[in-house]
Amino acid sequence: MTERIKGVLAPVLTPFKDGYLPDAERFVSHCRWLLANDVSLAVFGTNSEANSLSENERVDLLERLVDAGVDPRRLMPGTGCCSLTETVRLTSHAVKLGCAGVLMLPPFYYKGVTDEGLYRSFAETIERVGDKRLRIYLYHIPPVSQVGISVSLIERLLKAYPETVAGIKDSSGDWNNTKAVLDQFSKTGFDVFVGSETFLLANMRNGGAGAISATANVNPAKIAALHREWTSPDADAKQGRLDNVRKIFAKYPMIAAMKRAVAHWKTDEDWPRVRPPLVEIAPRDATMLIEELKAAGFDMPGI
Amino acid sequence: MTERIKGVLAPVLTPFKDGYLPDAERFVSHCRWLLANDVSLAVFGTNSEANSLSENERVDLLERLVDAGVDPRRLMPGTGCCSLTETVRLTSHAVKLGCAGVLMLPPFYYKGVTDEGLYRSFAETIERVGDKRLRIYLYHIPPVSQVGISVSLIERLLKAYPETVAGIKDSSGDWNNTKAVLDQFSKTGFDVFVGSETFLLANMRNGGAGAISATANVNPAKIAALHREWTSPDADAKQGRLDNVRKIFAKYPMIAAMKRAVAHWKTDEDWPRVRPPLVEIAPRDATMLIEELKAAGFDMPGI
Repeated sequence: MTERIKGVLAPVLTPFKDGYLPDAERFVSHCRWLLANDVSLAVFGTNSEANSLSENERVDLLERLVDAGVDPRRLMPGTGCCSLTETVRLTSHAVKLGCAGVLMLPPFYYKGVTDEGLYRSFAETIERVGDKRLRIYLYHIPPVSQVGISVSLIERLLKAYPETVAGIKDSSGDWNNTKAVLDQFSKTGFDVFVGSETFLLANMRNGGAGAISATANVNPAKIAALHREWTSPDADAKQGRLDNVRKIFAKYPMIAAMKRAVAHWKTDEDWPRVRPPLVEIAPRDATMLIEELKAAGFDMPGI
Repeated sequence: MTERIKGVLAPVLTPFKDGYLPDAERFVSHCRWLLANDVSLAVFGTNSEANSLSENERVDLLERLVDAGVDPRRLMPGTGCCSLTETVRLTSHAVKLGCAGVLMLPPFYYKGVTDEGLYRSFAETIERVGDKRLRIYLYHIPPVSQVGISVSLIERLLKAYPETVAGIKDSSGDWNNTKAVLDQFSKTGFDVFVGSETFLLANMRNGGAGAISATANVNPAKIAALHREWTSPDADAKQGRLDNVRKIFAKYPMIAAMKRAVAHWKTDEDWPRVRPPLVEIAPRDATMLIEELKAAGFDMPGI
């Protein structure tokens, strides 16, 4: 069996050209910078605006990335859609390309669905993909999807598909939930990724696997350093410095703010564009954001 | 200009074969029965499990329907997806087939989005489809989509695209909202459809256009009769009888319960199947549902 993907991953920002077309060149370039900073690629996450992309757009972008020489063992593309059909196609495609795993949202349009319905959804996907190489990371992000992954659902899935169900991204923002999942499953090799580096140190100290965090798009090296050196004496100080940077971005709509920062440090005015329903941050906010980041000593070396 | 679609529409149930494959034959047959009962077809609505279908599955089913001879002027397919790309494709396809209009959800994955972002989403779709025949019915269903259509968004869209933005389906379940929309826009020809026949009489008395309601799938003739005869002296009594039937279905998960009723009255055990994440109603509930419906004198003549 190949080694599991661990550490820090970025839900990679998706740049758009004029007309809101996905910009494969800038996308590949950003991915290379992240990899060079020791961060792997959870392309097509929430912060990638992946749910504003079509099935075909995701397929094309992923192929562009692999064609450009990016190692698929560093890739965990998001493949969970509202429809079983699309989830199966995207997941099969990712497995065929040799991706380390997939990050799978539950179907999220219908609300108040049962664990039985979600179980069927994941199980049917696994059966249809029918590939032993498949590794699924369940994507728990109730603040956005409104449909979550319960502890009992994880338990049932692990029992039925112990090799395939490899871990979770917990973006609940609720440490009690993460802790409960860690306590119950991490000893059996279930990999828990926190959805924000705010919880990275706590996660590592409790047996977690890493973080898949928005701000790994802009602050990759330092977040990756904390993951590598979480047992070092200054780990708490490192965590504090990461939190300070994140707090600045979190004052603004995150995705637009991160794209603005990339645009600034790359001097590239095509970067701030977001696809509807998102909007760019206002010019005054953009100025404030950059000033605050500079005042905090923030930089994006090599971008 | 062609005449606007009005009256009662059903968000047509989508039957599935074994393996959760869309069942085009049963779909066409159900559509024909609805049309024969004076109900038009809002295919691919929430109750159609449309958000569990892929883009291609919707395209195929719509073509099967038109190929089978269904008049596209009786069709209002749902075309609003999370991604602009898919919404544009489905909308263009519906317009090219000659559909009376499209029912358009806002992009619903990202939460807390601004009216500016939603405006861009609808405007960009209209510009890209670029067809004067397009008629959009905005789909306001905050209990499910969690992203709603505000009065000020309607105002802005109507100002920019007065011919194209034709109406709304209000599934908020909040009569105060429906009333506000009616008061502000119905006199200028904006067609308000309520999302449940519970509000049909109130809607007609306040200048509304009709209803697009789940239970029109199972109780079409009587709902359509109230729409035709809403000025008759016994309209309130008719409304009361409709409400009684709806209340029985509403005790159970609606979609699964309606499919169960169709299965019973058609004697067709392929009908109850739903696609994950939904699940069928339990056998005991199914028995109770049918008994209650029979006791209320409910029937599905000609199905």
